[in-house]
Amino acid sequence: MPNGAQSLIRGLVDAGVDVCFANPGTSEMHFVAALDDVPEMRPVLCLFEGVATGAADGYARMAERPACTLLHLGPGLANGLANLHNARRAHTPIVNLVGDHALGHKPLDAPLESDIDALAGSVSGWVRRTRDVGELAADAAEAVAAAAEGRIATLIVPADISWTDGGKAAPTGLGAPSGTIPCDIEAVTAALTSGEPAALLLGADATRGRGLEDAARIARATGARLLCETFPARLERGAGVPEVERLSYLGDAVAAQLAGLRHLVLVGASSPVSFFAYPGKPGDLVPEGCQVHALAPSPEQAARVLPMFARHVTRQAGPETATDAAPEAAPRRPARPTGALTAESAADAIGALLPEGAIVVDESNTSGLWLPGATAGAPRHDWLTLTGGAIGQGMPLATGAAVACPRRPVLCLESDGSAMYTMQALWTQARENLNVTTVVFDNRSYAILNLELQQVGAAAAGERARDLLDLSRPELDFVALAGGMGVPAAKATTAEEFTAQLERALADPGPYLIDCVVPPMV
Amino acid sequence: MPNGAQSLIRGLVDAGVDVCFANPGTSEMHFVAALDDVPEMRPVLCLFEGVATGAADGYARMAERPACTLLHLGPGLANGLANLHNARRAHTPIVNLVGDHALGHKPLDAPLESDIDALAGSVSGWVRRTRDVGELAADAAEAVAAAAEGRIATLIVPADISWTDGGKAAPTGLGAPSGTIPCDIEAVTAALTSGEPAALLLGADATRGRGLEDAARIARATGARLLCETFPARLERGAGVPEVERLSYLGDAVAAQLAGLRHLVLVGASSPVSFFAYPGKPGDLVPEGCQVHALAPSPEQAARVLPMFARHVTRQAGPETATDAAPEAAPRRPARPTGALTAESAADAIGALLPEGAIVVDESNTSGLWLPGATAGAPRHDWLTLTGGAIGQGMPLATGAAVACPRRPVLCLESDGSAMYTMQALWTQARENLNVTTVVFDNRSYAILNLELQQVGAAAAGERARDLLDLSRPELDFVALAGGMGVPAAKATTAEEFTAQLERALADPGPYLIDCVVPPMV
Repeated sequence: MPNGAQSLIRGLVDAGVDVCFANPGTSEMHFVAALDDVPEMRPVLCLFEGVATGAADGYARMAERPACTLLHLGPGLANGLANLHNARRAHTPIVNLVGDHALGHKPLDAPLESDIDALAGSVSGWVRRTRDVGELAADAAEAVAAAAEGRIATLIVPADISWTDGGKAAPTGLGAPSGTIPCDIEAVTAALTSGEPAALLLGADATRGRGLEDAARIARATGARLLCETFPARLERGAGVPEVERLSYLGDAVAAQLAGLRHLVLVGASSPVSFFAYPGKPGDLVPEGCQVHALAPSPEQAARVLPMFARHVTRQAGPETATDAAPEAAPRRPARPTGALTAESAADAIGALLPEGAIVVDESNTSGLWLPGATAGAPRHDWLTLTGGAIGQGMPLATGAAVACPRRPVLCLESDGSAMYTMQALWTQARENLNVTTVVFDNRSYAILNLELQQVGAAAAGERARDLLDLSRPELDFVALAGGMGVPAAKATTAEEFTAQLERALADPGPYLIDCVVPPMV
Repeated sequence: MPNGAQSLIRGLVDAGVDVCFANPGTSEMHFVAALDDVPEMRPVLCLFEGVATGAADGYARMAERPACTLLHLGPGLANGLANLHNARRAHTPIVNLVGDHALGHKPLDAPLESDIDALAGSVSGWVRRTRDVGELAADAAEAVAAAAEGRIATLIVPADISWTDGGKAAPTGLGAPSGTIPCDIEAVTAALTSGEPAALLLGADATRGRGLEDAARIARATGARLLCETFPARLERGAGVPEVERLSYLGDAVAAQLAGLRHLVLVGASSPVSFFAYPGKPGDLVPEGCQVHALAPSPEQAARVLPMFARHVTRQAGPETATDAAPEAAPRRPARPTGALTAESAADAIGALLPEGAIVVDESNTSGLWLPGATAGAPRHDWLTLTGGAIGQGMPLATGAAVACPRRPVLCLESDGSAMYTMQALWTQARENLNVTTVVFDNRSYAILNLELQQVGAAAAGERARDLLDLSRPELDFVALAGGMGVPAAKATTAEEFTAQLERALADPGPYLIDCVVPPMV
C-alpha cells in the first residue's frame, strides 16, 4: 500500500495535474521522495515561492488546466501569496499543496508554526487539511475539481499524513459540477437591439477562442462594441482575431471610453471600477445613464452562456450578411525602428517582429503605453496581463506559460522595478531551457509611482519623495543579474541594437534577456 | 493643519520611531510626499517587501527600539510576511504601516483589494485600521507602545485618511504598561539549590547585556548550567562574555544535551520542542524526570524578573567568592587556515578575524556547523539567528542591523539557497553604503534538505528527488548577482583566498560579498 505522498501524487496525475512548481522544505520531503515513484508528475524547481505560484498561474492560463505548487508551511505559502492574489483575479485554476507539521507536532508551537489557514483563506476558494491518509488522494481530486471552476484550491498536507502508509486511490467520477445558469437573456437582447449605444465587457475566457468568436458574432449582429477588462488574464489578439478594446488603467480615460454608453453587458467581467481611489474622482466608472446588465457576471458562466446567447441574438437579427462577417484584417506591422531607443521605438520593434503564436506576458507598466497599438496587426498571439496589480508576476508567469507551451515563443515584457521582485524565475528558465525572451524596460525608476504621485494630488514632490521612487542609485545591471542565474543577456541602447537583439533572441531557443535602456515616461 | 500622512509621520517620530524601511505604492503616495515635511524620519528604500520587514527586524534587534515598514496593500504585506514571521518568533518590536484603498473604494472590489486583516492578524499582536484622520497620530503612538512589548503592530492606513487634512498630534503619556509579574520565586530557588542537575534556558533579552549577566550570576551561585534557545534573536558572546550553550537543531542532539537534567528553568524562552516532527521521534524534548519551571515564560517578563531573581538567589547562596566570579576568558582564536576551502576552514578564518563589536547575522544553515566553536573566543560580538525558520532572512536582517549600528561591522553569513530569497537587500546595502560583509556558503545544494530527506526517514532518495535539491544546474554566479546590484564581490576557492578577502572586506567600509565555494556538508 502506498504512503500518503505517493497516493497524493498518483491522485493528482489521475485527475490531470502533472506539473508541480516546487519549493519544498522538510515537511514536504516525503512528497519529494515519492516523485521517483510516480514519473508522470513533472517537478519544476523554483528558488522562491512567488516564482512557483506565478508559474502555476502562467501554466494554467495557457494549458487551460491546473498545475500544482508545492510550498513549505505558512512562510512558504506567504511568499507565494502575491502571485496567488493575481491568479485569483485571473480566475486561474491552481492546486496549492502546502506541507504542514505533523498533526501531533502542531500544538507544540515549533518555530515554523503559523496560521496557514488564515493565509490560505485569503486567496483560495477551497481549503482543506487532510487528517486521514486514506482520504488524501480523494482530497487531491476534490481540490482539482474545485480549481477547475476557476478557483485556487489549497490542500494542507500534514507531514505525518504524507509519510504514513495507507494511501488509497481517489474515487472516480468527480468532475466539474454543472448547473443551470440564471440569466435574463430576453432583457439583455432587448437592450442590445434597442438601438441605444451598447457594449459587451468581456472577462475570463470570453477574451479568447470560442468565447471571443461568440462575442464578436453578437457584436456584429447588434452593433454593440467589444470591450474587455483593463487587465485580462489572457487576451487573444492580432491579425484575423476580433478586435477588443481594453479599458484604460486611468479612470479619466475610461470615462472617455464609456461616454454616452447606455448599456454595458458584463460577460465574465465585473462592473468597471478605478484601480485606486483618487481625491475628488469617482471609483465607480459606469457613466450616468448607463444600465449594467449581468449576462454572465461570474467567470465560470461566461464560456457556457455565450454560445447560447450568440445563437439567440443572431436568430433575432436574421442571417449574417457578407458585410456583417468578420473583416479579414491585413497584417499591418510597424517598420523596424531606427534611432533613439524609447518605449515607443521598442514597441515598434516588438510589433515588427512578434512571431505567429507568441505568448506575450506584459508587466511593462508605464513603458507599455505603445504596445497595444504597435502589436495589433501582428500575427495571432496571446496577451497575458497583471490581473491583480501585485507586481513581480511577469517572469514567473512567463516561466509557467513556457512549460505549458514548449513549442510557442514566450516574450516577457518587464519593467525594472517589477523585475526585481521575483527575478529568481530566470534560474528556472535556464534550468528547464525554456524559450522565454525577457525584455526589461530599464528606465531606472518606479515611473508609475511618479505618475501616481501626481494622480493622488500629492503636492509637488520634494527631494526625499522623488528619491524614494528612483532606481538609479546604484544602477541595476540586468545583464549581470541574468548572467548570474545562467541566462545569457545583452544591453540595448539604440533602436537598431534592440531590434537586432530581439530578432535573434526570438529565433534562438532557450532563455535570453535584453536590458532595454529607455527614458522614463513620467 | 497637517494632512493624515504628515501627522502620522510626526506621531511616529515623536514616539521614537525615525527609520522607515519602505516599498511604497499608490496608496502610500501621500506618506511618501510627507517625508519632505518631517525630515527627522529616515526612509530606506527596499526593492522587495521581504527586505523591508527583515531589515526592520534586524534594526530593532540592535537598536532596541522599533523601526516602521511601509507596505503596499495586501500583496505588499504578503511579500513581507515570512520575515515578519521570523520577527514574531524573535519578539522583535516592529510597526508595520500598510496602505489600503480609500474607505469608500473598498466595497468596489478593485483588483488590488484583498483581506489585509487576515494577513496582518497572522503575525501581529496588534492590528488597527484608522478610520478618522484625527486619530491617526494617536493610533501610531499606540502601535509603537504595543510594539514595545515585543510584538508586531500593524496599522492599516486607508489612502483617504492619509490625504485628508485634519491630522492631530497624539496625546502624550502613552508608554509601555507596567504590572506585577506572577512568578513563584521560592519554588524556582528551591529547585536550583536542591543539588539536582539544573539549567536555565534563556530566550528574549536574557541572552544579552544585563539579562545575560544576571543569568550568569544565578548560574555561578547555584551551579545551574546556562542554555539558550536553538535560534536566539540576539546572543551576546565572545571573550569575556558569560558562555551560553545553544540547544542543537537536531532533536537527538538536544536529548544528549538535556540528559540527566532534573530542573529546567525557562527565562523568556519556551519549553524546548523539536523543529519538525520525525517518524517515531518525540516532539517534546524535555527529558523524562525533568521538571520545567516557568520563571519568566513570556519574553517581556525575562528582563524584569531576572535582576530581582538574581538578587534573591545570590542572597541565599551567600557572597560570591573569587572562584565564583566570572572567569576572565583569554581570547582564543583559531589560526588563519590554509589549504582547502571548506565550511570548517571558512569558520576558522571567521574566528581568526572577527572584529571587536561585530554583528554576525547567521543564516549559514548546514555550512555553519563549525562557527560556534571557531568564534567562541573572538572579541565580544552579537550573534543574530533565523528565529522562525523562514529562510530569506539573513541579508535583510544584516541591512537593518547596519542601519541601526553604523559604527559596527556587520558580517552576514548566508547559505546559497537562502540567499536567493531576498537578495534584493544587496541593492539597499549599496544605496545606503552600509558596512556589511556578506559571505555566501556556496555549496550548490539545498544541503539541509538532503539532511532532512534522511531525517524524515524517506527511503533512499531517487534521482528526481535528489535533483530537486540540487542548485548546480545552472550554477549561480554570486559575484555577478552582487555586482548587478552595485555590491563589489569576489569568489574564493581556497582557504587563503577566503581569509585574505574577508580581512580586506572587514577592514573596508561599505558592502562587499564573498562567494565562498565549499563542498556540501551532506
